[in-house]
Amino acid sequence: MRTIAGDLTKDTQLCISLAARPGNTGTRFHNFLYDALGLDFVYKAFTTTDITAAIAGVRGLGIRGCAVSMPWKSDVIALIDEMEPSAAAIDSVNTIVNTDGHLVAYNTDYLAIEHLLAQYDVPTQGEVAVLGSGGMAKATVAACANNGYTGMVVARNETTGRALADQYGFEWAAELGARRPHTLINCTPVGMEGGPDADALPVSLAAVDAAGVVFDVVPRPARTPLVRAGEARGTVTITGAEVMSLQALEQFVLYTGVRPDDALVAEATAYSRHS
Amino acid sequence: MRTIAGDLTKDTQLCISLAARPGNTGTRFHNFLYDALGLDFVYKAFTTTDITAAIAGVRGLGIRGCAVSMPWKSDVIALIDEMEPSAAAIDSVNTIVNTDGHLVAYNTDYLAIEHLLAQYDVPTQGEVAVLGSGGMAKATVAACANNGYTGMVVARNETTGRALADQYGFEWAAELGARRPHTLINCTPVGMEGGPDADALPVSLAAVDAAGVVFDVVPRPARTPLVRAGEARGTVTITGAEVMSLQALEQFVLYTGVRPDDALVAEATAYSRHS
Repeated sequence: MRTIAGDLTKDTQLCISLAARPGNTGTRFHNFLYDALGLDFVYKAFTTTDITAAIAGVRGLGIRGCAVSMPWKSDVIALIDEMEPSAAAIDSVNTIVNTDGHLVAYNTDYLAIEHLLAQYDVPTQGEVAVLGSGGMAKATVAACANNGYTGMVVARNETTGRALADQYGFEWAAELGARRPHTLINCTPVGMEGGPDADALPVSLAAVDAAGVVFDVVPRPARTPLVRAGEARGTVTITGAEVMSLQALEQFVLYTGVRPDDALVAEATAYSRHS
Repeated sequence: MRTIAGDLTKDTQLCISLAARPGNTGTRFHNFLYDALGLDFVYKAFTTTDITAAIAGVRGLGIRGCAVSMPWKSDVIALIDEMEPSAAAIDSVNTIVNTDGHLVAYNTDYLAIEHLLAQYDVPTQGEVAVLGSGGMAKATVAACANNGYTGMVVARNETTGRALADQYGFEWAAELGARRPHTLINCTPVGMEGGPDADALPVSLAAVDAAGVVFDVVPRPARTPLVRAGEARGTVTITGAEVMSLQALEQFVLYTGVRPDDALVAEATAYSRHS
């Protein structure tokens, strides 16, 4: 184990996160991997009341990487130097990489969703239904559309739902109704630990029965009601925990240039969730 | 020992230093004490190419404390909210304390010199000769003048030497010559480890013989030729290593509100110097 007193030096590179309500998951995930791989990096979560000053600090202090959470995913666009395609695709930044003062913005949620659709061989021929119209729904619809998938946005909010659908050539519907898409992707808070609908499914059981893939981007719990329903039916299931772990891994790779193997990532993820 | 992976959290407070050529001494001194005292702080040295952005970062990221070295000790005055008397006395900042976004500037070199003059009962009646006219000479002359000492600035550079002397009601002289002041304070690089005059004395042996106190602000080595000459004569000697340790301690107290005991400070100092 690296120690704070003994191993931190002037050469140690700092990576940070900026969130309205910072947690410890990222700090534990990254520091665990730095330690396991012997990388001279340190990670810490921050909050700010001045995002402009905070990003100036990333630049001025030579902070290597910065994760960006709500509510600053759009605000930082004006503060960085270059939008990489993953961020440009959805006008939303969750990762900034600082190379000698040049700040490049990425969206590793987008990258993680794209990666998981390919990893699980989700067929582009089957219709996709993305449930929700918030930030993660936008990343999901964009990742689907940019990789040849077509389908629908299901969202009660017609304004945001229709706008999102129109932007990517998807249909919009207020409810799933009698439609039976091949791939169901939940980007609503339904099923989220501690939320008002923690025990609920975002769609009918009949829709789950008919689906070939269920994908829940809700990260906690790791096995939401939708994931459990999919598993019980032997359906291909993809979890929000996988999105979260993979997007953090992509940040790690962008910051360090090192890609840890799957076993180590699994260990880091388990460690990060017990904070 | 606190570990990086296990003990750093979102609540850990960060303190930093900004230096053109950062070293590890401060990082080791502060982290050693945080660890020994169980304080949830972490310290790291940084450099910057943009001091304005770096101080914006101190503010924007809620960095608790920031040590400032050459060449920014004056530049930061425009970037902070309040000059505490130690910094205002010499228009030079080496420490910034951030309390909820309000940045207060101190000069702990000044505070350390003031403290050591009192600790060693250096008599105000005896004439003081301050050798040099740079930043540390200014802190020293100001600390002397503001605590009732009178004397001379000895500096070959008439412009800076005379200006410094005039500001604080001291005499100026290019050389010590036949003068035999009671207290000799060296603020020149003579005697500095690795410098061109590492083995030299900044004054004649006759002046050391006549002195009641010799005080060398050169921090490395801990025992400079002047300190060794003073010790050999049984003169009261004060070292630059004491200034360095004490000014770092005052920073530690300002950042954390905790004053470690002398034994622990000695341990931290010894630890910090073996980097």
